[in-house]
Amino acid sequence: MELSDFLPIWEKLTDEQQKNISNSTVKRKFYKGEILHNGSSDCTGLIIVMSGQLRAFTLSKDGREITLYRLFDCDICLFSASCIWNSIQFDITITAQQDTEVLLIPAEMYKSIMQVSAPLANYTNEVMADRFSDVMWLIDQVMWKSFDKRLAQFLLNEINIEGTSTLHITHETIGNHLGNPREVVTRMLKYFVNEGLVQLSRGTIEILNAKGLEKILR
Amino acid sequence: MELSDFLPIWEKLTDEQQKNISNSTVKRKFYKGEILHNGSSDCTGLIIVMSGQLRAFTLSKDGREITLYRLFDCDICLFSASCIWNSIQFDITITAQQDTEVLLIPAEMYKSIMQVSAPLANYTNEVMADRFSDVMWLIDQVMWKSFDKRLAQFLLNEINIEGTSTLHITHETIGNHLGNPREVVTRMLKYFVNEGLVQLSRGTIEILNAKGLEKILR
Repeated sequence: MELSDFLPIWEKLTDEQQKNISNSTVKRKFYKGEILHNGSSDCTGLIIVMSGQLRAFTLSKDGREITLYRLFDCDICLFSASCIWNSIQFDITITAQQDTEVLLIPAEMYKSIMQVSAPLANYTNEVMADRFSDVMWLIDQVMWKSFDKRLAQFLLNEINIEGTSTLHITHETIGNHLGNPREVVTRMLKYFVNEGLVQLSRGTIEILNAKGLEKILR
Repeated sequence: MELSDFLPIWEKLTDEQQKNISNSTVKRKFYKGEILHNGSSDCTGLIIVMSGQLRAFTLSKDGREITLYRLFDCDICLFSASCIWNSIQFDITITAQQDTEVLLIPAEMYKSIMQVSAPLANYTNEVMADRFSDVMWLIDQVMWKSFDKRLAQFLLNEINIEGTSTLHITHETIGNHLGNPREVVTRMLKYFVNEGLVQLSRGTIEILNAKGLEKILR
């Protein structure tokens, strides 16, 4: 797997730009739970996911979390290099949701090439617009969607991502994804149990009726 | 007032690029309440505010609103040209909050120059990062801040923007800014009245104690 497989505008860079990026890029592995990036003071670099899964979230002052977006194979994480843009005035944290292999392009190198390469700058703009869309989706969810819909959507996404209807996830972790206290998650899950939609046991949630969850979304 | 006063990277464009932008840019006036842009199907163009005030908001399916950000003199509105980016998957609406004079650069012209000009692409990227910061601030507000804090912050911003402590604004308009029903706004304003912070009369809110509102924020 090469940089050219991940950066669609690779062929539009000059030979020297390609060489400079290649020589400075390193392959790294992060273990499940490891923090890759922590707040705006951190400027690790551009991260390209080769395999695994990353989660970007924001924290309240008292430590509550809400997931902004997740990144999968071939996705690019810009905000791990947030120092590139003067206008970024927010902190996000990025952790590995699974063991994750990434390519890491140092922020200074990326910035120096982006400043002279219109293709790279425009590509970066598209990636930022993509994350902007994720965050606008989140605003739509938290502003206008009731919690039963948001939880049903989350469970359906998870069985899709994990490829199994038995999810190994705690109520607290779900609360951290959705920005709600654990108690609120537990209460709604119990309602889903009564409706025959899910079954709970220690540390796992089994989806019994995915169609029923989809019905909640409508 | 010229384009060069508003686009800080003007001098980094070629003579031909400057000429092409200048020749295609038009000056327009929008009256208070007029809609400049309505959803992603609309692609008016890049808008530079010369004077006045614009408001960008998002709508729920049943017509509720929340303000994403406001734009003042010299600010640039990218999302009125959202067709430039394939990755923008959300609809926003932009209205004139006051009579507003703008420069309008057609989307196709802007895009064609941005595709070859690294300075323009990087500048655009900074503007998008700036809006991203606005929207992240909003997520922080709606997720973690209680409504009394959000309303106090809104009123303090308004007296700052309007330059007067007597605000001509309805409870419904405030609700549309903050994404809450009118009744919720009215209830909190009555609480502020009881605390001696504001005084209400038909269509106006007078701020009696700005320091008291600031105390709520802490």
